[in-house]
Amino acid sequence: MDLAAHLKARAETIEAALDRLVPPADAEPARLHQAMRYSLEAGGKRLRPALVLDACAGVGGDAEACLPTACAFECIHTYSLIHDDLPCMDDDDLRRGRPSCHKQFDEATALLAGDALLTLAFTLTASNATSLGAERANAATAVLAEAAGAAGMVGGQMIDLLSEGVAPSAELVETIHLKKTTALLRGAVVAGAVLGGASAAQVTALSRYGTCLGLSFQIIDDILDIVGDEAKLGKPVGSDEGHAKATWPAVMGIDASRRRAAELCEEALGALTEFGVEAEPLRALARYVVERDR
Amino acid sequence: MDLAAHLKARAETIEAALDRLVPPADAEPARLHQAMRYSLEAGGKRLRPALVLDACAGVGGDAEACLPTACAFECIHTYSLIHDDLPCMDDDDLRRGRPSCHKQFDEATALLAGDALLTLAFTLTASNATSLGAERANAATAVLAEAAGAAGMVGGQMIDLLSEGVAPSAELVETIHLKKTTALLRGAVVAGAVLGGASAAQVTALSRYGTCLGLSFQIIDDILDIVGDEAKLGKPVGSDEGHAKATWPAVMGIDASRRRAAELCEEALGALTEFGVEAEPLRALARYVVERDR
Repeated sequence: MDLAAHLKARAETIEAALDRLVPPADAEPARLHQAMRYSLEAGGKRLRPALVLDACAGVGGDAEACLPTACAFECIHTYSLIHDDLPCMDDDDLRRGRPSCHKQFDEATALLAGDALLTLAFTLTASNATSLGAERANAATAVLAEAAGAAGMVGGQMIDLLSEGVAPSAELVETIHLKKTTALLRGAVVAGAVLGGASAAQVTALSRYGTCLGLSFQIIDDILDIVGDEAKLGKPVGSDEGHAKATWPAVMGIDASRRRAAELCEEALGALTEFGVEAEPLRALARYVVERDR
Repeated sequence: MDLAAHLKARAETIEAALDRLVPPADAEPARLHQAMRYSLEAGGKRLRPALVLDACAGVGGDAEACLPTACAFECIHTYSLIHDDLPCMDDDDLRRGRPSCHKQFDEATALLAGDALLTLAFTLTASNATSLGAERANAATAVLAEAAGAAGMVGGQMIDLLSEGVAPSAELVETIHLKKTTALLRGAVVAGAVLGGASAAQVTALSRYGTCLGLSFQIIDDILDIVGDEAKLGKPVGSDEGHAKATWPAVMGIDASRRRAAELCEEALGALTEFGVEAEPLRALARYVVERDR
């Protein structure tokens, strides 16, 4: 299958849904809605909402029917980037080549825009009851809140912050990745499965798939960062162990990290053995995640 | 009825439920959970969760069954205080006589603790499906998200920030109060009603009650602030119109504000005409809100 074309079509569907489901930029208070949309509209691969749709379709469900929840995952991802960029966190002035939300607006507005996107996500999951019933919508709310909260993404951020300056172990790196990035990616897959009417066995298999996909995604991300930095600096990075970041390549080296990502890809594909042709996009995504070069 | 005893019993029930439903302080990452509990356990009147329980009971529902959602409203209220106190917002070092969350911990931890409490709120509303079914739990999720988000509390914060230095009109003050504080108080009443199986007419009446209660609560809060400041300063405050805050007494004067609060109390009671003895705590609360001296 042509994954690039598939992802492009998914991104277009998702961006149209976001435009429809997020209040307009001139809704009062306009500055808040402008900041929310500024960050939502910054682009990106729309990987999390695509996973909701593809997991739903993968179990024979109607992908279009779970667009509200797909958009909810993108709202959560976007809020996390806005809050991460704040001065008290990573203090990043740029995001995807544009001023980060607090540089384009101001810190208070960015804080509130993040809070509003986080809250909007649950307006969206709850609204999925209209197309798929309260039982499934409520399950999607639970999956998203668990993935995004203290046991998942926010907890991973906290552990990452607490680990600054600590020499990272493989165990610490895996803990951070499981929570900080994998939890939301796996949550997207599980939410899509639940909304699509998956059996318990299918949910378990797709949860396994999501975990492997999420971990391999993060490993490759970290490798691409290092390769990019080395290209810029003209010398190998990561040799100063005292300042090693909590990443796979920093702890295991690049070659071992690539092997681990390839193993995780195989495990992700293995989790889909019982699935039919409807899961082909999920299989292609697992391969893409480890083969991509950006 | 003895409202003080009733509120005390409610607060004890709610605090026990919070202790049960919020992850323990030693759950990993411990610092995050400690910060969440530090702010949740700071006390306060527990007015929002009490309103969830009393509205549920007021329509003949089982108040205990909606404790998860009651706790969700307290999580939202607490997160809003943590984020409000941050340096980029009100920059308050103290909250209820103790160091605010970012002073006791640090800014990044306070930001994340707020995010985690906001997210936990929706784990809690979704979990209310166990006792009351997915339909009602999902409705509670929708009510809470609407009340707390850009159309409600967060939007009110934004408008309040944007209004700094602007001479406030009665209209602006009402808009800020309707969103910043009333939305969540009304949301608590409506969520309790929905969880208790209220009819559409009952939801409409209780929404009206919640609006009047919320507005009168804020008016009295603002009066008590001024009276407190005057006692401390030994002179009338609010005379410098250029620095008038967006409050009822600053715009209308204290006497007119007290009259408005009393009218709203009557309107709140009027909304409950069709309700029976089960709504007696709601009636007592409406009176208490305007008669209290702190």
